[in-house]
Amino acid sequence: MAALGGVGEIGKNCSIVEQGDDIVVIDCGLSFPNEEMLGIDIVVPDFTYLVENKERVRGVFLTHAHEDHVGGLPYLLGQITCPVYCTEFTHALIKHKMDERLPHKKIEFKIVKPGDITKAGKLEVEFIRVTHSIPENCSISVNTEHGYVLFTGDFKFDFTPVDGKLADLKRFGELGDEGVVLLLSDSTNVERPGWGPSESTVKDGLRKVFLEAEGRVLLTTFASNIHRMQQVYDMAKETGRKVAVVGRSMERNLDICGNLGYVRIPNGISIELDEAKRLPANQVAILTTGSQGEPLSALVQMSKGEYGRLQIQEGDTLIYSARPIPGNEGAIWRTINRLFQQGCRVIYEAPYPIHVSGHAYQEELKMMINLTRPFYIAPVHGEPRHQFMYNQIAKGMGYPDHRIFTLEAGIPLEMDDKNAKFGEEIPTGRVLVDNSGTPGVSDEVLRDRYNVANDGVVILSIAVDTTHGEVVGDPTILSKGFHGPKGLLEDAQDLMVDALASLNPSEIKDLNRVKLDSTAIVRKFMAKRGKLRPLIVASVIEV
Amino acid sequence: MAALGGVGEIGKNCSIVEQGDDIVVIDCGLSFPNEEMLGIDIVVPDFTYLVENKERVRGVFLTHAHEDHVGGLPYLLGQITCPVYCTEFTHALIKHKMDERLPHKKIEFKIVKPGDITKAGKLEVEFIRVTHSIPENCSISVNTEHGYVLFTGDFKFDFTPVDGKLADLKRFGELGDEGVVLLLSDSTNVERPGWGPSESTVKDGLRKVFLEAEGRVLLTTFASNIHRMQQVYDMAKETGRKVAVVGRSMERNLDICGNLGYVRIPNGISIELDEAKRLPANQVAILTTGSQGEPLSALVQMSKGEYGRLQIQEGDTLIYSARPIPGNEGAIWRTINRLFQQGCRVIYEAPYPIHVSGHAYQEELKMMINLTRPFYIAPVHGEPRHQFMYNQIAKGMGYPDHRIFTLEAGIPLEMDDKNAKFGEEIPTGRVLVDNSGTPGVSDEVLRDRYNVANDGVVILSIAVDTTHGEVVGDPTILSKGFHGPKGLLEDAQDLMVDALASLNPSEIKDLNRVKLDSTAIVRKFMAKRGKLRPLIVASVIEV
Repeated sequence: MAALGGVGEIGKNCSIVEQGDDIVVIDCGLSFPNEEMLGIDIVVPDFTYLVENKERVRGVFLTHAHEDHVGGLPYLLGQITCPVYCTEFTHALIKHKMDERLPHKKIEFKIVKPGDITKAGKLEVEFIRVTHSIPENCSISVNTEHGYVLFTGDFKFDFTPVDGKLADLKRFGELGDEGVVLLLSDSTNVERPGWGPSESTVKDGLRKVFLEAEGRVLLTTFASNIHRMQQVYDMAKETGRKVAVVGRSMERNLDICGNLGYVRIPNGISIELDEAKRLPANQVAILTTGSQGEPLSALVQMSKGEYGRLQIQEGDTLIYSARPIPGNEGAIWRTINRLFQQGCRVIYEAPYPIHVSGHAYQEELKMMINLTRPFYIAPVHGEPRHQFMYNQIAKGMGYPDHRIFTLEAGIPLEMDDKNAKFGEEIPTGRVLVDNSGTPGVSDEVLRDRYNVANDGVVILSIAVDTTHGEVVGDPTILSKGFHGPKGLLEDAQDLMVDALASLNPSEIKDLNRVKLDSTAIVRKFMAKRGKLRPLIVASVIEV
Repeated sequence: MAALGGVGEIGKNCSIVEQGDDIVVIDCGLSFPNEEMLGIDIVVPDFTYLVENKERVRGVFLTHAHEDHVGGLPYLLGQITCPVYCTEFTHALIKHKMDERLPHKKIEFKIVKPGDITKAGKLEVEFIRVTHSIPENCSISVNTEHGYVLFTGDFKFDFTPVDGKLADLKRFGELGDEGVVLLLSDSTNVERPGWGPSESTVKDGLRKVFLEAEGRVLLTTFASNIHRMQQVYDMAKETGRKVAVVGRSMERNLDICGNLGYVRIPNGISIELDEAKRLPANQVAILTTGSQGEPLSALVQMSKGEYGRLQIQEGDTLIYSARPIPGNEGAIWRTINRLFQQGCRVIYEAPYPIHVSGHAYQEELKMMINLTRPFYIAPVHGEPRHQFMYNQIAKGMGYPDHRIFTLEAGIPLEMDDKNAKFGEEIPTGRVLVDNSGTPGVSDEVLRDRYNVANDGVVILSIAVDTTHGEVVGDPTILSKGFHGPKGLLEDAQDLMVDALASLNPSEIKDLNRVKLDSTAIVRKFMAKRGKLRPLIVASVIEV
């Protein structure tokens, strides 16, 4: 097997299992840019290896519908054609995005149920139900000639899930009996000791707020967190409130889930926003998007007083029922602070549960090892710190070093009956997709953006008569996003003009020379006089 | 009184107390830019009000030497001249920075001791010892004709401080008896229930790691956290290790503090790095800078294997004995992950104390209110969420709404014998200082940087013969940091050339017209065809 993403990082989960002529792909996710990736919207894996071997790809198998497991799919299926296996719920959630991104491509979706086993060439792929923060979440086991390669996917062991659908512990145990050659385990929460709280515990936190709040209760969470929304409806019923929803993605997901029966809205509890405005404040609850501080989300616009459909009012209480995805903290805190300034109390940390993680804590991770008794073991869905700690846990359970692997993207782990070792690197990496949706933003482009973001851009414009080898008109300097001591630009312009004047006609006929010389002079001057490193661009026009 | 910064935000603490002809300034700090302030190094308050009233400013009084309380001083003293009152320790730590920034200015430092009272016109300013995460930290009380205006400054109540110097609780109580008209209280940790742990508890965490680590122990913390460093020396002595220091700011601060007696290094414990390399790994401890992931710090360079003086080795343990300043999380996690990848175990969260906050928890905040029994009360050193929660605490202690104030920068709180009310706004705001140290980066510059950072810059160069009203040579398009669909730039260039060709000579003679027309055409085309919004700059040369 090899990971194309999702190891040594949290995000863009995508792995392959390869045996003979057959390749299966497990998940196809995206990740979010870090603060150094300016102007980047999302990051997807480099799919070169799959494109080069596309005739061998038997299918993409999706564990669940979170973006870090499915968000790369449109970019893969833009380059290769193969069936996509997933549950009905996953399909329902991702379908419209696929249609948006690949309007002309007919994608062969194969709907599976937890427990189903699918042939994929000589491999067999099995979906096994396991609990997480989204319905119909599965582990995926690939039956190879050397035993099962088991991807836990994202999981926790929740014995009181909101939909009552428990993890198929028995099947995990059977796989252990039959022989798991490699366990690829979620490791995101390996830093947390003990056993994570059940999704159902959030009910107690919600009840407290719903009962005590004198005004409206607003709650923001991930739009895919169907069970959290279910609990809001249930609690509204229990406490005599009615629920309105604002935010497109939440409304859409609730629609889909209502139709498919994944959410059961008690009779008479769901209302339109207009009705909510007419009810007494203490009879209203509102579900809203914006838990990541997204600028265009309902919550962020409300916090700025710029949301036409709904205004924050004194006495509102917002439950922040989510966690910040790294990189979004600034935007989220600014939103929360603005809400406080408008008189809305925001509950984001509390002695009672208002959010729980969907990922296994230490004892749950150990239980997965105990159930499946893999021969080899490797943490995924974690940064190096998580991989390190997970390996410590495996060691603590008696695993020797040679049966524990710290995977890197693109380095295959090759296994046969006797042993496992790292193989030769396959093409991999990150593909940056910019705000316009075009993949492939280069490092050079990023570097230029970074330079301009720091010190601005300085543009030198020079017109050259190449017939006579002379500079015509006045060379000019323009700047944007530039800030420096007074007179610096003017002095730079003088320097440049002097330097150009010192060139002889044959030198001037060499436009590249003119460009390099003027750029170099201005760059040096800026660095020395102003300690500034703007991006300097010379534009030389031939007249 | 009025805050020029430090209310509704964490950072750039700077307040004034004004009475008749006298103004005193309490603290003069900086803050760090948020992720939207591209290319900005630090942010300082707008000092216009003090500049306009400079003949009335009797002095700047500093509570302690942290950057968010002293870092704006060079920018204020570049504009006005007045004495600076601070303790010997504060002076020692900030002196070299003042010399660097204002080499030609003779600054009148007045060294005070905790307990000292200074006349400032008709006002009196008193320094009162209180514990925090830096030596010689003080609250400051200004005796006005209506009672004391008491600035707690940053504080916690630590009954076992490392230097044994306890907060002057008695004096706080006396001020309460004599009459505190307004308490301006630290509110940063108002979200934390109970009472914060003493700095001395960190000793237990350090001991555990120092004893159990099989290899070297590295520890990173803020270079100003003298007491933390003291504890490292003490623990090294206790556990048979010797201590080397890497990182310029840490070495300098330890030098200063050693000379002044603020740190007591046990005999024979301090060694040079060369000696550390010769000792067995389990006899070595290393203090290092870099707790904020600063790119040029020793720790970050070590994590990249690029630090010439010291290499990470398998079996090293790093104690992350600090907290991330918001905005630095990404850089810090990347550093920690790289250390793990090099085989260094990093301890950043632990069931034993490896870091404690220097700010008061809820019960400590209440104790300050209880001791000083202010008539009016206002939280400072907090974002709106902290202000809101602090006010809840004050209400819980019986304060009615009209005696609690949520301050905003630049809105004075005017008090007399009878009541307090907000006055007319005075000039205030943020002054952005860029990487070169030049203050005053404008919003327009930031906006341009932001645009370029997102979608790059597109430069149109056009040469015009203004005598004949014709475009000469080929108008060109250049781009930097730009990424779009294939052929987009070429198509944009064709469009621009066509548009210019359609202008008549008199229109072309209007260079501004040429500029606006070509920019508008390219902007519109980019937005429509590529959904891109690069910064577009037209440079028109007259030949």
